[in-house]
Amino acid sequence: MLDYDMISKASRTLKGVTRVTPLLESELLNTHLGFRLLVKAECLQRTGSFKIRGAYVKISSLTEQERASGVVAFSSGNHAQGVAAAATELGVKATIVMPEDAPAVKLRNTAEYGAKVITYDRVTGDRAKIARDISEETGAVLVPPYDDYILMSGQGTIGIEVANQLSQRNIVADALVCPAGGGGLIAGIATAMKELSPETTIYSAEPEYFDDTRRSLLSGERVGNDPGHSSICDSIVTQIPGEKTFPINKTLLAGGFAVSEQNVVSAMQTLADHLKLVAEPGGAAAVAAVLCNAERWKGKTVVAVVSGGNVDLDAFHSYLKPSA
Amino acid sequence: MLDYDMISKASRTLKGVTRVTPLLESELLNTHLGFRLLVKAECLQRTGSFKIRGAYVKISSLTEQERASGVVAFSSGNHAQGVAAAATELGVKATIVMPEDAPAVKLRNTAEYGAKVITYDRVTGDRAKIARDISEETGAVLVPPYDDYILMSGQGTIGIEVANQLSQRNIVADALVCPAGGGGLIAGIATAMKELSPETTIYSAEPEYFDDTRRSLLSGERVGNDPGHSSICDSIVTQIPGEKTFPINKTLLAGGFAVSEQNVVSAMQTLADHLKLVAEPGGAAAVAAVLCNAERWKGKTVVAVVSGGNVDLDAFHSYLKPSA
Repeated sequence: MLDYDMISKASRTLKGVTRVTPLLESELLNTHLGFRLLVKAECLQRTGSFKIRGAYVKISSLTEQERASGVVAFSSGNHAQGVAAAATELGVKATIVMPEDAPAVKLRNTAEYGAKVITYDRVTGDRAKIARDISEETGAVLVPPYDDYILMSGQGTIGIEVANQLSQRNIVADALVCPAGGGGLIAGIATAMKELSPETTIYSAEPEYFDDTRRSLLSGERVGNDPGHSSICDSIVTQIPGEKTFPINKTLLAGGFAVSEQNVVSAMQTLADHLKLVAEPGGAAAVAAVLCNAERWKGKTVVAVVSGGNVDLDAFHSYLKPSA
Repeated sequence: MLDYDMISKASRTLKGVTRVTPLLESELLNTHLGFRLLVKAECLQRTGSFKIRGAYVKISSLTEQERASGVVAFSSGNHAQGVAAAATELGVKATIVMPEDAPAVKLRNTAEYGAKVITYDRVTGDRAKIARDISEETGAVLVPPYDDYILMSGQGTIGIEVANQLSQRNIVADALVCPAGGGGLIAGIATAMKELSPETTIYSAEPEYFDDTRRSLLSGERVGNDPGHSSICDSIVTQIPGEKTFPINKTLLAGGFAVSEQNVVSAMQTLADHLKLVAEPGGAAAVAAVLCNAERWKGKTVVAVVSGGNVDLDAFHSYLKPSA
């Protein structure tokens, strides 16, 4: 179960560990849009994404004996870096199972944060099985990417920060849009916002063909994505909502948006141009959903979570300037 | 005269108006560098640079009668946007004299912030004279770009923020490096740091061929730059230190660095890669000076001010990925 008290406790655990990331806006952009867009810049978080929040809270919750056995996780990117950095800071050994074709910067960073990286072939390998095997052999505790209440409580601390930042500036937000992969980030944020800012409607944002949360919300039960598609939004590509995250999101979310790759690139451009932020494609999905549904928000105030900024700069340039 | 009390007062004036920009760092970058680099991300300030601080404080200090006559400024970029936004917020009419070949986005933004934009021919026109004429005709008060104590007190509020952010995290900074154009920003910051963090040594950073502050500090008197050079660091290209800024900087600065364009581009790359920030070339000059003098800071803690992020994205891409 996840409740506000858990998130509040997680917030105390993270004090002095993670950064209170800024809630940014651009007056000129707001004028162009005809509504107020506030961006929670979690790309400025330690490790370049929100993932260190949940990882640190989760590893902090382990017993001394569990910590002594280390932790293991599988991830192609942000979760890997978050777990590696959190484990190192807590003096816990971390093993991360990553696809061998993950972006070079993410593989390198994960190792540099202090984790042992084990790569696998995305086609022939089964990362969950590899991680389970390591866990069984070594006793290492698996830190799941999203489907865990303690982990979600860590991600939910973003909701507390947003609510505080809004109230400090006397702003009431009509809506908050957040990228959804497995749904842990948005479940945590939605739980915190329901307590602190119940007037704010919460929506998920996903890439087209990977809008399993959106479709699951519509159908009322967990439905998966059709196979055979790919997306530049690597950090939020999942096949089906989590067993633990979805019941929370089903209760707290008003619906979801699916965005095209062109929408995402356009959002990355807007974030760089107006807010001076480098966002990764998946991290920009919520901003994309807000921008390409502009007529919906006229006169309103909308928060969009930018969940991460870990994009290879070569890829960043080629997305934003494909003709060069 | 400029003193700490003026900056403290400016800080109260700016409360709720300007953003307390974050002091960011990357653990991995620090490990690579062998020292701790803290970046004051003033590119995340309203209008995309620090200029709104001084402009707002200056315009706030005018009498009712002066405000009724409006303000005038000349600038090709950041100061224009800062004055325009500050004046509009204070209900004061602003006229900005800009070169007709200034980047379209800067002309447009300045107008969108609410200013009347008057363009002139960079070859045949004299922007200072045009601004003086407007001032004489209309009674509008000239808001100078740097050589003004009240303006400097506004820029100096960055120093108060940095000192507070350092002490909140129990960090003692050995050095602070700041871009210098006319020298108003660094004079303000140095005055605040001298009061609040006297153990921090202050250095200027400038583009090569435009290192008039560095050379003036060495010679003990204001010396200008040789003609015939250009720089991508448009926001900090000036010909000679200010009459009012230089005596302050002469007293408070330990010296200055000159950086090459390659150093600047490399710093912009590092800021995007590790801190997810879009910096303009001039805004990245201090980070460039820190990075290309790495051996000097081994084991130390250095603050670098990123003064702005107003760069055309096309230029940003072509600087960082010239081969594409």
